[in-house]
Amino acid sequence: MAVSYLDELIAALRCLPGVGPKSAQRMAYHLLQRDRRGALGLSVALQRAAENITHCSRCNNFSEQEVCDLCASDRRDEGLLCVVEMPADLLMIEQTQCFRGMYYVLMGRLSPLDGIGAKELHLDRLVKRVQQHPCEVILATNFTVEGDATAHYLATLLQSLGVKVSRIARGLPVGGELEQVDSGTLAQAVLERRELIV
Amino acid sequence: MAVSYLDELIAALRCLPGVGPKSAQRMAYHLLQRDRRGALGLSVALQRAAENITHCSRCNNFSEQEVCDLCASDRRDEGLLCVVEMPADLLMIEQTQCFRGMYYVLMGRLSPLDGIGAKELHLDRLVKRVQQHPCEVILATNFTVEGDATAHYLATLLQSLGVKVSRIARGLPVGGELEQVDSGTLAQAVLERRELIV
Repeated sequence: MAVSYLDELIAALRCLPGVGPKSAQRMAYHLLQRDRRGALGLSVALQRAAENITHCSRCNNFSEQEVCDLCASDRRDEGLLCVVEMPADLLMIEQTQCFRGMYYVLMGRLSPLDGIGAKELHLDRLVKRVQQHPCEVILATNFTVEGDATAHYLATLLQSLGVKVSRIARGLPVGGELEQVDSGTLAQAVLERRELIV
Repeated sequence: MAVSYLDELIAALRCLPGVGPKSAQRMAYHLLQRDRRGALGLSVALQRAAENITHCSRCNNFSEQEVCDLCASDRRDEGLLCVVEMPADLLMIEQTQCFRGMYYVLMGRLSPLDGIGAKELHLDRLVKRVQQHPCEVILATNFTVEGDATAHYLATLLQSLGVKVSRIARGLPVGGELEQVDSGTLAQAVLERRELIV
């Protein structure tokens, strides 16, 4: 049998992360049988997004404009710059409503095994930005091996330029009980204890 | 913030089965960051498929032509008609290479709770087809409650028209051990035992 539009659709769906041959087939059948309108809507949304979304020249997050809404806002504190790995991390911090500073999105993390070094992450852009707009840098990369390594690298790099650098706190979650937390987190919470000033 | 192309893409991805808000966000970020070409390819494939794929007038399977390749083939046995629920079931049977007859794809199953009755499944088309091309009908719906009910309904309907109807066998899988099979299957295997003629 020749390659059909159905086969093409099933193959194309596999560009989505976590979608294997079986899921792709299920998705294609679902769209064709129950939601052709959704399929056409998704087609338009994919094209528009792929052709119009670029990166904000200040924070490196996805944006349709040269400078994104958040960076263009005059209600943010320019003296604080929070560095995160991914756009989803930025959204999580914004949801807490505890931070009113600026962001820089790395769009990844240092990962030598995957061939992602300082150059691939374009860390020179971050350095340039900090030099142009002096500020305190808060490192909010993940507490994974790679996220920690990225934070360590950035701290060394930025401190050598005289920038004040901090790292978000590690410890027990709010409402967390010692009995239920993993021992790695508990050990860090003990090591990184804070003096109580009453 | 106004609704952006990114938000639109995340919303549109949710038309895929099993994709919630978190997965949709992850998929959108992945496509924008790592696979814009894949996104555009998927966009084209979705549009082509949604606009060009219809149902084969004989077997009711998805097809780009009025009559699909399988139904148009002259190497199939017109005297056997295998009724399955979904296109994926047809593919599974084709993969076994044990069946050289024709198919009829119901595109669903009787499911009164979901409002799917004989009319919604267009069973009149199946009846018309069997009346025009007399054949033995093999019911290969799933062995679920709904699949069994569908088979029972079809058997009653078709036998009243004088059609020979059979159901695919239920029992232990090939290589199956009694100790490991569930008791429902084992009970059916005992009830539906076949006489051995040596």
